[in-house]
Amino acid sequence: MSELGITVKKSENFAEWYSQVVLKSGLADYAPVHGCIVFREYGYTIWEKIQRILDKRIKELGHKNVYFPLLIPEALLKREVEHFEGFEPEVAWVTMGGDKSLSEKLAIRPTSETIMYYMFSKWIKSWRDLPLKINQWCNIVRWEIKSTKPFIRNTEFLWQEGHTCHETYEEAEEEVMTMLEVYRDLIENYLAIPVIVGKKSEGEKFAGALYTTTLETIMPDGRALQMGTSHHLGQNFAKAFDIKFMGRDGEHHYVWQTSWGVSTRLIGAIVMVHGDDRGLVLPPKIAPIQVVIIPIYYKEEDKHTVMEYSIDVKRELEEEKIEVLLDDREERTPGWKFNEWELKGIPLRLEIGLREVRENKVTIFRRDLLKRIYVEREKLITTVVHLFEDIHKTLYERAKKMLNELTTEVDSLEEFKKTLEEKGGFIVVKWCGELECEESIKAETGATVRVIPFKQRPVSGKCFYCGRPAKYIAYFARAY
Amino acid sequence: MSELGITVKKSENFAEWYSQVVLKSGLADYAPVHGCIVFREYGYTIWEKIQRILDKRIKELGHKNVYFPLLIPEALLKREVEHFEGFEPEVAWVTMGGDKSLSEKLAIRPTSETIMYYMFSKWIKSWRDLPLKINQWCNIVRWEIKSTKPFIRNTEFLWQEGHTCHETYEEAEEEVMTMLEVYRDLIENYLAIPVIVGKKSEGEKFAGALYTTTLETIMPDGRALQMGTSHHLGQNFAKAFDIKFMGRDGEHHYVWQTSWGVSTRLIGAIVMVHGDDRGLVLPPKIAPIQVVIIPIYYKEEDKHTVMEYSIDVKRELEEEKIEVLLDDREERTPGWKFNEWELKGIPLRLEIGLREVRENKVTIFRRDLLKRIYVEREKLITTVVHLFEDIHKTLYERAKKMLNELTTEVDSLEEFKKTLEEKGGFIVVKWCGELECEESIKAETGATVRVIPFKQRPVSGKCFYCGRPAKYIAYFARAY
Repeated sequence: MSELGITVKKSENFAEWYSQVVLKSGLADYAPVHGCIVFREYGYTIWEKIQRILDKRIKELGHKNVYFPLLIPEALLKREVEHFEGFEPEVAWVTMGGDKSLSEKLAIRPTSETIMYYMFSKWIKSWRDLPLKINQWCNIVRWEIKSTKPFIRNTEFLWQEGHTCHETYEEAEEEVMTMLEVYRDLIENYLAIPVIVGKKSEGEKFAGALYTTTLETIMPDGRALQMGTSHHLGQNFAKAFDIKFMGRDGEHHYVWQTSWGVSTRLIGAIVMVHGDDRGLVLPPKIAPIQVVIIPIYYKEEDKHTVMEYSIDVKRELEEEKIEVLLDDREERTPGWKFNEWELKGIPLRLEIGLREVRENKVTIFRRDLLKRIYVEREKLITTVVHLFEDIHKTLYERAKKMLNELTTEVDSLEEFKKTLEEKGGFIVVKWCGELECEESIKAETGATVRVIPFKQRPVSGKCFYCGRPAKYIAYFARAY
Repeated sequence: MSELGITVKKSENFAEWYSQVVLKSGLADYAPVHGCIVFREYGYTIWEKIQRILDKRIKELGHKNVYFPLLIPEALLKREVEHFEGFEPEVAWVTMGGDKSLSEKLAIRPTSETIMYYMFSKWIKSWRDLPLKINQWCNIVRWEIKSTKPFIRNTEFLWQEGHTCHETYEEAEEEVMTMLEVYRDLIENYLAIPVIVGKKSEGEKFAGALYTTTLETIMPDGRALQMGTSHHLGQNFAKAFDIKFMGRDGEHHYVWQTSWGVSTRLIGAIVMVHGDDRGLVLPPKIAPIQVVIIPIYYKEEDKHTVMEYSIDVKRELEEEKIEVLLDDREERTPGWKFNEWELKGIPLRLEIGLREVRENKVTIFRRDLLKRIYVEREKLITTVVHLFEDIHKTLYERAKKMLNELTTEVDSLEEFKKTLEEKGGFIVVKWCGELECEESIKAETGATVRVIPFKQRPVSGKCFYCGRPAKYIAYFARAY
């Protein structure tokens, strides 16, 4: 098993541990293309689960799925100046079709605002066409110059991007906040990862946005990870793309816009936050397999008895819509299977041997606590359902504890730097909110403003860095 | 309504009729990128329906969804020579990342064999790793030099591509045929389009395949449309990519492979085959909205009565999982709504006015026959369910009739040319099966072998074109 299992400890070599878990659990593999991975079936199934949860919510809120072209003509991408400046360094350009050079180069979408909004200006005429609320699930390419990491930062990734147009600033703002809450619910209540919600600073907002709201959290190595964003675009793009409507007042107005997205990066966060020295630990709500059954017998004559009981248990679980796999491979020992399914992070393992059959019970091993319990067969379903809830809660609480431990409030630049070097994590400070100040902090320390939480307490006194009056409590960190 | 409705007849100007239906029904819009369209919500929802049907079948058959990179290094694309020669003319190339030229240009996938099989060679070691059965839903770019047409031929389109590896030739062949049958079932039993199933000729098979099986049909303008293909790749790619396994016999063997796919082209076929002079006509099983309810009242005092009854009817249909929309817009007249939903091809329209309420009945208009019936309220559900079946059958039979009318058996080149010019459609001939012969026919007439049907009758005599002994009954046509 040694070459199959994880050979380093999470606490000792986090980067290596992460790579091993991603590769060995079968989530992904490195592709022979700059910064790209293959989403293998196990990793892709987690994405499908996330998609199903989110797609349902997105549609319930009245958005419709669409699909826009992958390729964006350079002139369109340039229309909104700040947007182009923000994305230009990471655009992959198509310059040839067949053996011919193109007269205008085409960007592979780094995000779809520009190609979409060009079309919106054709479609929107009147207030009756508003709100326009669409979403698309697609691939995105950003030519990464920073070092890449599977799921966390790849040249190509998968995401959903929602785009909406509204009559008023307030309606757009409500949309921004509604979708941020949808994301929070997904991340906290399905992925079991606690997040800090708030606004981005001027220096960190989306290129072209009025303001950006975000969900941020801390990975076990002390680096921050942005989990999703929801942008109020104001009328910046509407003006660049001339998206106007005839209002209820009979006058022409520019629309107010939002865009919002989460990506396959979420899978990386699940691995980093919940994984342990044995490998993945998956929250039950997004585990491709929720329960694995291992039949255990040492004599051929016991096989029938154990298998019959195991198949029956499987059927019972399936009737309750629980995703279950009966591992009946004969070429593998039970111990080998235990290791493999622990590496793959299956929430519950049922061990069924002669004793279980004889006593009409089931041995249940929970992956999060690495503990066994022994339950009556008639309590199987209620126990499993209860354990799913308890595993989710345990994972969430454990992650919350880590988040708290990796959040440090400081008053001075000296403490800021010391915390950053020794511990990392979120560093909470009183801050002035000025662009110039955050740029200096970044240059001097490598830390950026991750989030200005919506939950603020009254702030008085001076900015920890520049001494100007403090405006906010802000969370800084080095980030992925 | 005139500018909203279709202004040409399908029988008089098919190309213009098609464009108008696609645009005005809201299926798609032209994008400002060479040969690309925007899949608008109505068109994309049809794709989602097709995906749901097919994805379920694909998974039931043991395939797993995955996602491979969009970009393929040139050297990989070149590994299988025939494959590269086939696709090279239509590859879009990425040559720049940010402001840097790439040392090796990257192809946007025109199909994913090469990038996938490079990985397969790393993953497959033993017969225990076989069969490997994966599928991916993704976007594809082929730089089209032929004229493009929404859904039918676009620079970028959406599809699924399945890829499998097997121990034996026979097992791969079984996979090829299983998936072909899945496609036939989808196309005939959900999209209501009859197809001819069979093999491709040497000249028309997939670049790099041993042989290609196909589903072909005829559009109302007499041109053939390939609806889906399933390829036996033999060991061609296995040898180019060195995909070997340790067999049960302890020896190393190359795997046997298949690949198969259908694309968003299917949406174009639905429009072309079933549409009429009023617009789209959608088969009930893939219609985004299956029933639209139009409340009809002329006095404000009747509104409450009619709306209450309409809402109640809606609820009843929804309880039966029927997808229903109650069009309660007050700014539009019932007549305007009739036209709009006919244009959008909704299978059934319920008209509910005072008379319906008073008599506890419902007026049902079926889109395919443009006919009304008047039914008891308590027979609503059984009638709707029956009508869905009958509409499907009617559409299928109508398409089958067209297919038969556009299929002509001929004996001589003279008749072949005459039929091709005057009528188009499938031209059925006795044919020798030689590559050289099909190339000459193509050069002389513009027609290609579309399919050599599996259902053959005993063939004797000479090839209609070259006079060599005839081997097959083959279907020729000019194709999209």
